[in-house]
Amino acid sequence: MSDDRVLLAHGDGGQLMAELIESVFMSRLGTGEPPGDDAARLEGGGRFVFTTDAFVVDPIFFPGGDIGKLAVCGTINDLAAAGAGPLALSASFILEEGLLISDLERVVGSMAEAAEEAEVKVICGDTKVVPRGRADRVYISTSGVGAVPDGVNVSGAGARPGDVLLISGPVGDHGLAVLSRREGLEFDSEIVSDCAPLAGLVQALLTAAPDVHVLRDPTRGGLATALNEIARQSGVTIEIDESLVPVRESVAAACELLGLDPLYSANEGKMIVAVSESEAESALRALRSHGYGAEAAAVGGVLEESTGQVLLKTALGTHRILDRHVGDQLPRIC
Amino acid sequence: MSDDRVLLAHGDGGQLMAELIESVFMSRLGTGEPPGDDAARLEGGGRFVFTTDAFVVDPIFFPGGDIGKLAVCGTINDLAAAGAGPLALSASFILEEGLLISDLERVVGSMAEAAEEAEVKVICGDTKVVPRGRADRVYISTSGVGAVPDGVNVSGAGARPGDVLLISGPVGDHGLAVLSRREGLEFDSEIVSDCAPLAGLVQALLTAAPDVHVLRDPTRGGLATALNEIARQSGVTIEIDESLVPVRESVAAACELLGLDPLYSANEGKMIVAVSESEAESALRALRSHGYGAEAAAVGGVLEESTGQVLLKTALGTHRILDRHVGDQLPRIC
Repeated sequence: MSDDRVLLAHGDGGQLMAELIESVFMSRLGTGEPPGDDAARLEGGGRFVFTTDAFVVDPIFFPGGDIGKLAVCGTINDLAAAGAGPLALSASFILEEGLLISDLERVVGSMAEAAEEAEVKVICGDTKVVPRGRADRVYISTSGVGAVPDGVNVSGAGARPGDVLLISGPVGDHGLAVLSRREGLEFDSEIVSDCAPLAGLVQALLTAAPDVHVLRDPTRGGLATALNEIARQSGVTIEIDESLVPVRESVAAACELLGLDPLYSANEGKMIVAVSESEAESALRALRSHGYGAEAAAVGGVLEESTGQVLLKTALGTHRILDRHVGDQLPRIC
Repeated sequence: MSDDRVLLAHGDGGQLMAELIESVFMSRLGTGEPPGDDAARLEGGGRFVFTTDAFVVDPIFFPGGDIGKLAVCGTINDLAAAGAGPLALSASFILEEGLLISDLERVVGSMAEAAEEAEVKVICGDTKVVPRGRADRVYISTSGVGAVPDGVNVSGAGARPGDVLLISGPVGDHGLAVLSRREGLEFDSEIVSDCAPLAGLVQALLTAAPDVHVLRDPTRGGLATALNEIARQSGVTIEIDESLVPVRESVAAACELLGLDPLYSANEGKMIVAVSESEAESALRALRSHGYGAEAAAVGGVLEESTGQVLLKTALGTHRILDRHVGDQLPRIC
């Protein structure tokens, strides 16, 4: 049955759709019970966060992951960047008529794996089917609800002069991995996406260094864009030292070849941390002691000025403004 | 500037995207503040529900609504069907390159209007752009978090023998409205979608009749499919009387002409209610006293048997099984 394909009729709320949901989705993501109510239940109290993302990555399978893993990790990481542990995820699928059911099964399997690693469940979902040529195989929108532990107060607006900036590992892997697969490029060593759920990493970090001020996962637009957002939201000036930013050799070489900048290339398993100087050491240690943060580094800090800009100290010792880029670097990277 | 169009570069996380978000989305849905963190904050305690839906309706504008109104109402109604008032919504957009910005503005404006009516905000969102021919103008996925008041216990599995079944108004309007616009059909009287946010209607209902057992909004697959879901989840037999189900004359005539069945046609502003016999009268009165329930009717009840089936008593007095339909009635209706 491995060449079964998605039909338009899989999307119209009838019997075929119910079968698809039970055989593909519920068997992997759910409890094995037939689909029930349209809203799933949650209980609790306190501070919650809510986030959503659409995923349209092209191609849907790439070295290190696929659109399913990406959709779950992206949402978990947005919750983690708010200092929150994931409570529940939702997933809604837009399927192109003709999609191989086996490809869909693989994607949903990846979602289940990533969710399990982060100890969270996809508790509600939806599926629509559109005719051939009205989508590109599969698009997924995931949303997540997370709980913020007492005492945790992180925000993009929280950076303060004197804070130290950490990055949890080498930057640019995801963007280059997707691009190289999309364009059929071959490099000496395969570039693999860093796509990973960072709930555990952030939990370890916040336990070791409760005075973290900012967490942000530098996805679309990369490290440079995320730092610009932080500088602007916090009303501070950020300075980073180019020579301290970890970049894999393979990624640097591929960027060189393609005329790209790893600082603007997407990451899907990295976290930027702004932390008070007094806790910077223990924060870095906590990151490095976790599998997803082994190559973490301190890359700069927050200055006294408040220009809302990011300054890059280049390898030559000069300074330049590291802008948000204007359009058109890498579309459909997530 | 009314012929401005969405560019691929609007979707890549850079400056153009930030401008689009501020000028189109934040100005209508948000506080006017620049976009901040990737997760939005909520506070509270108790029982919550979480739901998600993807919207791919074709065409995106139809009599009585558009994809934006639909996306917000659909999510509010899924929360309402769980007995919950909406706390927060999220929206993620997949835009096709070339979409008119003015069309996007109109869609987002409709979302803001529907959300305002239900006294809820879209607190987080995401936007992706795909190349021409990889989507159909705009797809929207909305998720919602709702709070369930103490004492409310509704579920698709809650129907009990003796319950009375109500429907909050005439069925089939939305499906026929979308289909007639899509196919360019002209009828004597225009058929208008019933698309509406039902948070207020359900609140009025639950205040008047706290012993409501089931609420369900009969969207894709229509009344027949939703009743089948309830019968199956609750393990009961449901009987409805065809002559009691309200159907507008214009909808009935169009269905006749097109060979469609209004019982399987989608609704986007109707609620099915199963309520104990003792509260059926007050429940019906509460529905009818609300603008969106003025034409509510009792259409049948739950029998002693437990076949998981729905029986239709026809106008001729005979009985037949009202099945979930198998595929292919009306694709892309929501």
